[in-house]
Amino acid sequence: MKSDTSTLSSIIAPAERLRLIAEQLQARNLDAYYVPPEDEHLNEYLPENKKRIQWLTGFTGESAPLLVLPDKLHLYVDGRFHLQVDDEVDPAVTTVHKLPPDQSGDKCIAAALNEMLEQGKEKIIVGFNPFIVSPSRLASLEKQTPSDNIQWQSITPDLVDQVWSDRHDQASEPAYQLDTRITGQSVEEKLSRIREDMKKLNAVILPVTRLDEVCWLYNLRGKDIPYNPVLESYAILTENEAFLFTQPAKVSESLRQSLAAQGIQVKPYESYPQTLKELCAPEGSGPQKVLIDKSAVTMGTLDVVAGPAEVIEAEHPVMMRKAIKNEVELQRMHLAHERASRAIIRHLASTELAFECGKPLNEETLRADLEQKYAEEDEFFELSFPTIPGVGANSAIIHYSHADPNQVARASEFYLLDSGCQYLGGTTDTTRTTVFGEADLLKKERYTAVLKAHIACASLIFPEGTKGSQIDAVCRAPLWSQGLDFAHGTGHGVGAFLNVHEGPNRISKVCSVIFQPGMVTSIEPGYYEKDWGGIRLENLYYVVEAKEKPPFMERKWLRFEPLTLVPFEMKLILFEQLTAHECAWLKAYYQRIWDTLSPTLDTDETDWLARQTAIPVDWIKRLRNA
Amino acid sequence: MKSDTSTLSSIIAPAERLRLIAEQLQARNLDAYYVPPEDEHLNEYLPENKKRIQWLTGFTGESAPLLVLPDKLHLYVDGRFHLQVDDEVDPAVTTVHKLPPDQSGDKCIAAALNEMLEQGKEKIIVGFNPFIVSPSRLASLEKQTPSDNIQWQSITPDLVDQVWSDRHDQASEPAYQLDTRITGQSVEEKLSRIREDMKKLNAVILPVTRLDEVCWLYNLRGKDIPYNPVLESYAILTENEAFLFTQPAKVSESLRQSLAAQGIQVKPYESYPQTLKELCAPEGSGPQKVLIDKSAVTMGTLDVVAGPAEVIEAEHPVMMRKAIKNEVELQRMHLAHERASRAIIRHLASTELAFECGKPLNEETLRADLEQKYAEEDEFFELSFPTIPGVGANSAIIHYSHADPNQVARASEFYLLDSGCQYLGGTTDTTRTTVFGEADLLKKERYTAVLKAHIACASLIFPEGTKGSQIDAVCRAPLWSQGLDFAHGTGHGVGAFLNVHEGPNRISKVCSVIFQPGMVTSIEPGYYEKDWGGIRLENLYYVVEAKEKPPFMERKWLRFEPLTLVPFEMKLILFEQLTAHECAWLKAYYQRIWDTLSPTLDTDETDWLARQTAIPVDWIKRLRNA
Repeated sequence: MKSDTSTLSSIIAPAERLRLIAEQLQARNLDAYYVPPEDEHLNEYLPENKKRIQWLTGFTGESAPLLVLPDKLHLYVDGRFHLQVDDEVDPAVTTVHKLPPDQSGDKCIAAALNEMLEQGKEKIIVGFNPFIVSPSRLASLEKQTPSDNIQWQSITPDLVDQVWSDRHDQASEPAYQLDTRITGQSVEEKLSRIREDMKKLNAVILPVTRLDEVCWLYNLRGKDIPYNPVLESYAILTENEAFLFTQPAKVSESLRQSLAAQGIQVKPYESYPQTLKELCAPEGSGPQKVLIDKSAVTMGTLDVVAGPAEVIEAEHPVMMRKAIKNEVELQRMHLAHERASRAIIRHLASTELAFECGKPLNEETLRADLEQKYAEEDEFFELSFPTIPGVGANSAIIHYSHADPNQVARASEFYLLDSGCQYLGGTTDTTRTTVFGEADLLKKERYTAVLKAHIACASLIFPEGTKGSQIDAVCRAPLWSQGLDFAHGTGHGVGAFLNVHEGPNRISKVCSVIFQPGMVTSIEPGYYEKDWGGIRLENLYYVVEAKEKPPFMERKWLRFEPLTLVPFEMKLILFEQLTAHECAWLKAYYQRIWDTLSPTLDTDETDWLARQTAIPVDWIKRLRNA
Repeated sequence: MKSDTSTLSSIIAPAERLRLIAEQLQARNLDAYYVPPEDEHLNEYLPENKKRIQWLTGFTGESAPLLVLPDKLHLYVDGRFHLQVDDEVDPAVTTVHKLPPDQSGDKCIAAALNEMLEQGKEKIIVGFNPFIVSPSRLASLEKQTPSDNIQWQSITPDLVDQVWSDRHDQASEPAYQLDTRITGQSVEEKLSRIREDMKKLNAVILPVTRLDEVCWLYNLRGKDIPYNPVLESYAILTENEAFLFTQPAKVSESLRQSLAAQGIQVKPYESYPQTLKELCAPEGSGPQKVLIDKSAVTMGTLDVVAGPAEVIEAEHPVMMRKAIKNEVELQRMHLAHERASRAIIRHLASTELAFECGKPLNEETLRADLEQKYAEEDEFFELSFPTIPGVGANSAIIHYSHADPNQVARASEFYLLDSGCQYLGGTTDTTRTTVFGEADLLKKERYTAVLKAHIACASLIFPEGTKGSQIDAVCRAPLWSQGLDFAHGTGHGVGAFLNVHEGPNRISKVCSVIFQPGMVTSIEPGYYEKDWGGIRLENLYYVVEAKEKPPFMERKWLRFEPLTLVPFEMKLILFEQLTAHECAWLKAYYQRIWDTLSPTLDTDETDWLARQTAIPVDWIKRLRNA
């Protein structure tokens, strides 16, 4: 995913970039300028033309906020990027602050500003682009700089954009619209449902600022961002009108006409704030009621609305409807997971054989082999996130996303593979942990504990009204009983041919969202120990009604239906530690994998799958009798 | 617990009471007067002199709000009391509204007021005593009567009190103070800690309005309320002063002197509002900062404070500190539970023998036998709530609290016994379900499912920071897996020689309180089926650090330590459905019961206990090998 910045660097030298932005500060009487590591749509991955920090500093990593001072750039980099940042930035221009664990860049920036004040500066005005700063981020920064002498000041347009003279826009990648055979619902139907939601909330205007929400609403897709098949755009919905704001060149004439026929007006990307402003207080009318989900918008949208209009705060109706997949979306998700699961099975089978034959394997060859097999499946678009091929101690790094050719496969070491794809209509995300050769007992014990946690969650039957935080505890309890836990969420929502991470449903300690039929979630308990290795077992599931159980106290029962079809690692399972219930779940899951995928595998792969899914018969019998 | 109202009735006739209160309405230009089923301290059980609804109507049940109209009293009674209410009230004076399931009295009162408006009444002014209405109750009533033409008006003093000329106050029962050998902490220490809490929250005044909070803070107890050994009182704490407001006659001269030596000034109960008001805005000072927990006070306290002072909202520090029991309190809780558990064991053993010998048993004889055995133990004060001896179909009634002599023990029927005591220093609460004679398979299956849920929760090891809602899901999951659930919370906090229900910790779907070492909780999963019967298995536990597990990610592990020592019903357990883990937990628990209590039982009782705690050896072996 790392982009090549050499062509940019050849045009304007780093020191010149600092000089240019420093001029902007001076022209606007700013003491500092804050650049968050996000963009206008709070994306997880940024499009090239929004990589403002990269353009200023050369740094290609993620999550690092930047503070521009007149004489120097200050970049706050977390542990994942401490090595690479030194290769990427010019220390004469950028001071790198390497964050200790659990320290946030924003907190350090606030501390630096507070210190400037203590050291005698009378007043500090910090500019920022409100369209790339979320309300919660600004509130946190303001809270951490409580003095009246530190002022956070909205500046539009963005100061980096002002000096980024060699910026390319992404107009070359056209938008396209998906057929209802892929989306299961027409734009007309979606608009009608969302307008019903707005009416219930007494709102007449709805800004849509997250790219996956715009794309879901209009059944559009694009290629503006790696891993997310989305179009850089905004939307605004009113009672009678629907707007799409994007670069005009991305919309072909035929698409424009087709959108118009569906009631969607296409406008230039830049005209979003002005159009929103005009809609908020149309001439001759009073302030309009605008639905705002504060967790979905930036300060820019909030500022435009809050003045002239009446803000109605609610969860974003597009997010809520998008989370509940329809029948067609689920069919496409199933198809995508059959493809991805087959690719993973083929990769794991060939990897085992290669290791046994003594072929040299390393993270880079493993990554390449998997991604090739992903791409060999029909209707492959791209990966849904950078493949994580952690070998040995690297398997313990939760946010690992490199593939190191020097990290070679060694006997009895873990191989943690976290990866996913975008196939037409479906997004996948799977993690398996396996071992090269034979594993020692401790590895088997830890693996079995994580598997028990996975099954506790995957086999759970729960009543309507159950929240993510409740399901989280059920998943962790088997690990807790052994004094183990993991430092990440248990599950996240996943889009249908959209973002691999989407809200609102999560399985986590803090999620109060109620799980409903049609919601897709990962279940991914793990266990990690530095220098020893890590285990994560991740499948995607969707919520269905458990019709085999009659409703109780008028509440229906729900359960998880698997999408992912990859066996767990037979060599790492201690069957004597499984209960009859766990064994039965595993047996049914393996039957489904076998029935679905074995007809499409070659002989070697079928043999591998047969070995991997053959639960020792004596365990099943023994546990049944117990 | 039902009090005899015949002496009252003989003095003033019901119709005369209505006439007297109607006069009050007229004198104050009120169209109606609302009486909630609560008192000044939001008690679960009311003292005799606060049973205002009972005095007006004759109704002795709980939870029924009253609307006084000039010509009639309107009482809104839930299903538990539909039979008894007809025997208790005079229909010429009181119209009884029998609520359908899931309907609240307040909702019906709001609907009645709205209807009066629709039927032509121009304006309705409803009076209420703010000192017995909680802020949340008033907010809910106001929300349900949205018209500007319905006004809720604070009236002090209470209108019922104005006409209740034959009211006895409870001065005869003196207050007493507990030694630190019982409480583990002196008043001085407690005051100092709470003042630290106030300081952290930047508050200088703390009203204490719940009786158990006043009693805990000052190490006081009283006999003003059945089941709760508390004193009817208020307290106010400032940075330098501590006040106790109670009937002067309840405080002996020696206690008064002793309290004075501990820095506590005793004032008349009635002077609480005025003193609070004066403290809020002392002459020559600005508004004071008063700490208010809105869930703990009534509108009366809130109104007194909100005007002249600055309200600082926070959880009540006394509630938070009271919830975490100290070593001495836990010792006393252990001792109380040994006593209560022995009494229950003796009762269950003698009941089994009596049934086998063909002696006639009914709910009333069972209740009397248990309560006698409770009272035979040392340092017995009283029950902690009315005994629930549900035989047969009555075992399915969750809020059952009668003992019906006509409900006799029959073979193969359930006997659900929910009961508790106040022993000096400790409060108990235990539920066991057993069966007369032999049970059928379905009863065993359901019982085993509830037992699995109990063990899942009781044996849980969880990290610091875990909330009640998370633990709730772990308890329910084994029932959910069979399509079963129960319509009450999984656990509640319990006081140390105080209220059997106390906050803030609960194990429930909605509780976000974090469980900390020293907190006491019940664990009481159940299963209920109308006309078939009910099962509830309730023990009390307290949270301890699970020191056998090393901390993980710098978080300690916690677990539950049992207080209750009563075996489950051997005849109802299907051991083949237990896992090795469940069997091991049961074995360790039974060992503890045996070691602690068998030396103090007679031969018959010891034999019974030996049978009840003898887990079939072959099951233990089999499961160990599996």
